[in-house]
Amino acid sequence: MRVVALAGGVGGAKFADGLAQILDPRPPQTAGEGRRHTQEHAGIRGGSRRFVNHSLTVVVNIGDDFEHLGLRICPDLDTVTYTLAGLAHPETGWGLAGETWHAIEMLDRYGGATWFRLGDHDLGMHLFRTGELKQGRRLTEVVAQACSRLGVAARVLPASDAPVPTMMETDQGTLAFQEYFVQRRCAPVVRRIRFEGVEAAQPTAEALAAIDDADLVVLCPSNPLVSINPILALGDLRERVKRRRVIGVSPLIGGQAVKGPAAKMLRELGYESSSLSVARQYADVLDMFVIDTVDAEQRESIEALGIRVWVTDTLMKAVEDRVRLAREAIGFAVG
Amino acid sequence: MRVVALAGGVGGAKFADGLAQILDPRPPQTAGEGRRHTQEHAGIRGGSRRFVNHSLTVVVNIGDDFEHLGLRICPDLDTVTYTLAGLAHPETGWGLAGETWHAIEMLDRYGGATWFRLGDHDLGMHLFRTGELKQGRRLTEVVAQACSRLGVAARVLPASDAPVPTMMETDQGTLAFQEYFVQRRCAPVVRRIRFEGVEAAQPTAEALAAIDDADLVVLCPSNPLVSINPILALGDLRERVKRRRVIGVSPLIGGQAVKGPAAKMLRELGYESSSLSVARQYADVLDMFVIDTVDAEQRESIEALGIRVWVTDTLMKAVEDRVRLAREAIGFAVG
Repeated sequence: MRVVALAGGVGGAKFADGLAQILDPRPPQTAGEGRRHTQEHAGIRGGSRRFVNHSLTVVVNIGDDFEHLGLRICPDLDTVTYTLAGLAHPETGWGLAGETWHAIEMLDRYGGATWFRLGDHDLGMHLFRTGELKQGRRLTEVVAQACSRLGVAARVLPASDAPVPTMMETDQGTLAFQEYFVQRRCAPVVRRIRFEGVEAAQPTAEALAAIDDADLVVLCPSNPLVSINPILALGDLRERVKRRRVIGVSPLIGGQAVKGPAAKMLRELGYESSSLSVARQYADVLDMFVIDTVDAEQRESIEALGIRVWVTDTLMKAVEDRVRLAREAIGFAVG
Repeated sequence: MRVVALAGGVGGAKFADGLAQILDPRPPQTAGEGRRHTQEHAGIRGGSRRFVNHSLTVVVNIGDDFEHLGLRICPDLDTVTYTLAGLAHPETGWGLAGETWHAIEMLDRYGGATWFRLGDHDLGMHLFRTGELKQGRRLTEVVAQACSRLGVAARVLPASDAPVPTMMETDQGTLAFQEYFVQRRCAPVVRRIRFEGVEAAQPTAEALAAIDDADLVVLCPSNPLVSINPILALGDLRERVKRRRVIGVSPLIGGQAVKGPAAKMLRELGYESSSLSVARQYADVLDMFVIDTVDAEQRESIEALGIRVWVTDTLMKAVEDRVRLAREAIGFAVG
């Protein structure tokens, strides 16, 4: 069974990890370094679009990406990569477990820009990516190599190799996403969200081929406005997803996001903050939707949109929660 | 007394530190962060060229500078800055004491370029510099701010705000300096050394003003070919230095450099590897030269060039050696 998950943010990464542990179980980590995986030899550099040995492909939002202090930072790709590698920080969900902060402490001492927290271990990824991109490699290749070296069994694909920065038009002016999200802590009132350059940018051939081959496409419990929409907006990706069997998992529980500004953002843009509201936005795409038990009363309204509904506990606290939720979603989708 | 030292490399930084400890004694380090120093308020940002409270100005080679993994790296500026701040690694002479290597360990895990050793603490400087330069600030301003924050009392100036990369023409092709020096460990045979763009680049106004105001200019015990010559080659800097009283300290002891490829490089370019040979290269500039006791027999030949000679132990092992050597040199120059 071939599954493609569209993901961004911490919730998306956690659910993708749940899928990975069912579909592409992680091998026990060897000490010191990730094992070389067949992915590196299976075609990305050779141009082949078909992959073997991968049940799960995660297509990741690149709208959060930005350049900072000379480095190309891809927060969603890194969150997914670290989470699938079992290296993510267990509390924050972003960044690495056991991180140290010597570089940013020195940066602070010099009076530099410290609003985006760059950990020492994490810097290794940014340095690697920036260096490889400057050599002319595609982001897709660079991500594949990093994942391979970390022993990630699932295939992780950026939605596009081109930058398509999410721009937040707010009451405090137009802000790049990380300026809005990290530097201003989501305080500005959002008036409009733009994906800059989306008309010209294309999804990668790898992402399109994975979707075309998928038995199931999953919209992870990510922010619809700034994690999933930026992926669906690329080229004809949304049209291609529509042709597949598609299940979504609501990112909202009782109208609130577990993490991040989804609820505030939905309201500011004139939407209701509810699983029903999210289902409406995805209505052209979704066949099935998973919502939380506290939102069970929205079931009928969502089903009225022609979407089958599964109601369960969607909060992912421990790793076991990810696996259970993923198993329920997959079971419902293929059942 | 106003002293300007031209410096590059570890030997240059050590001698500059000796000068600083005589001329601008370092205040006791407060725990945690460097005190704010008058330098920040004394004119660099305001455009004034005259400085108060600084007896020592160190004009530093920028020929080693390069861009690496998206970051602007200035090895000689950092070596001088860290050494004057009392933060330099006591054994290597470059980099920081107590450094950690998490970022580069992760970079290595991904298969990235690790030949240039970037420490975690050291990365703070590269991130700061790169970010500030991308904001449009001058390198001179950025260095001044970093030095101020580290409590460096002496004034540290890049020789130029423009990149003037030292290019090594070798039997293995033309190499950027750090490729030759670090990546290939000085193994290629040097045929010619070029300072790329030196015709158009200018020394900074601050460096020229400091030289014009100097009671004494010191050529530190640095590699003449790749540390001092790149400074002297900028605009009319060499002519201006000639008009001052100038003392040099030989970087060679018994024809050998304490560190680095000066001896090999001199021979490959057809020069003798000796203090006399270095004196000949500086003959138009030098009034006085300090050589090691093991080279005492070269004294007369150097004096025949019209250069007064001081013979002493020039090896700087401990911090006390720097101070003693600096004191002897200053004493000889003004005596």
